[in-house]
Amino acid sequence: MAEDRIKPFTLDFDLVSGLCKSGRAKLTHRFVSNMAAQFNDSAAAEEIVRNGDKPIYDFYELDQIPETAGDLKFGTSIVYAGKVGDEYFMTQGHFHTILETGEVYYCLAGQGAMLMETPEGEVHLAEMKAGEAVYVPPRWAHRSINTGNETMVTFFVFRSDAGHDYGTIKQKGYRKLVVERDGKPVMIDNPKWAE
Amino acid sequence: MAEDRIKPFTLDFDLVSGLCKSGRAKLTHRFVSNMAAQFNDSAAAEEIVRNGDKPIYDFYELDQIPETAGDLKFGTSIVYAGKVGDEYFMTQGHFHTILETGEVYYCLAGQGAMLMETPEGEVHLAEMKAGEAVYVPPRWAHRSINTGNETMVTFFVFRSDAGHDYGTIKQKGYRKLVVERDGKPVMIDNPKWAE
Repeated sequence: MAEDRIKPFTLDFDLVSGLCKSGRAKLTHRFVSNMAAQFNDSAAAEEIVRNGDKPIYDFYELDQIPETAGDLKFGTSIVYAGKVGDEYFMTQGHFHTILETGEVYYCLAGQGAMLMETPEGEVHLAEMKAGEAVYVPPRWAHRSINTGNETMVTFFVFRSDAGHDYGTIKQKGYRKLVVERDGKPVMIDNPKWAE
Repeated sequence: MAEDRIKPFTLDFDLVSGLCKSGRAKLTHRFVSNMAAQFNDSAAAEEIVRNGDKPIYDFYELDQIPETAGDLKFGTSIVYAGKVGDEYFMTQGHFHTILETGEVYYCLAGQGAMLMETPEGEVHLAEMKAGEAVYVPPRWAHRSINTGNETMVTFFVFRSDAGHDYGTIKQKGYRKLVVERDGKPVMIDNPKWAE
């Protein structure tokens, strides 16, 4: 459909900070207050919020790209270093609404992990660091986790019509958590996970 | 189809050189001898080949990713600095076989341009430099051109089933060329272009 067409364009994303300094991409901020219920230690989350809140991550979206199966959306995700209790700062994570679509994350800075799971319960934790790309195949829910001391930045690309299903994760949580044990990230069962 | 499934994986691409140092992605080299006919000044191309040839660009491919509409392929493209006559080193360029699919190129190093055209004859030249992403919408043939003095590196992502139609470009060429005039890149009509 002609009305769905978009012309070629360029867009800046700083290769280290991930910031779109031109301001031409839409930035969304997520604070501890936006996802307190998604951390295992709700009391620790509430404490952070009471003390003035903290940013967990920022991401860019490109609303101007038509949501067709032939177009792609892209942007950067910027996850800050920190923890809620012993659980590392992380993105909310999502399935794609069109479940059979994948996503690519190319890590530009920092280090951490991509926690992935399928609806059938298969789980995969991929280590991420600057200069590594993670392939999230179709069907895998995915969440970025910053397990380091620096901001973790990724450049992501997905099919423009894929859609974000945040609800399933919000309701059920992930099967696993990534927490700090003896100074190192470890994946453990999520005690709150509901089948 | 279960047999088409791929598990999540990570793959390294150096953020400056674009090289996959682990060797886990398939690298293809293109030399002047591989595309002498595609430069306007064939005599200059033949001269380079006689003098031992020169690499124009390298790119990585991920054959392991299933070619479905829900999967994505990705990799880096590395275009060296140089010219054939007054025409800058460039990739062969392609339409996607599934024409209605786009592609994202994120420039990691160097500078240049993405030359794009539609089957209907619309032309667009997008400037590229490190930290800029170029969106190539569905239907646009695209070719990377290094107009600088350094190697130009891009990280690209496209729908895994898109396919590369190199034949159309090889036969007809692009409508435009990017050549050096007074030390600067200029887009001119391709005298050899055949409707």
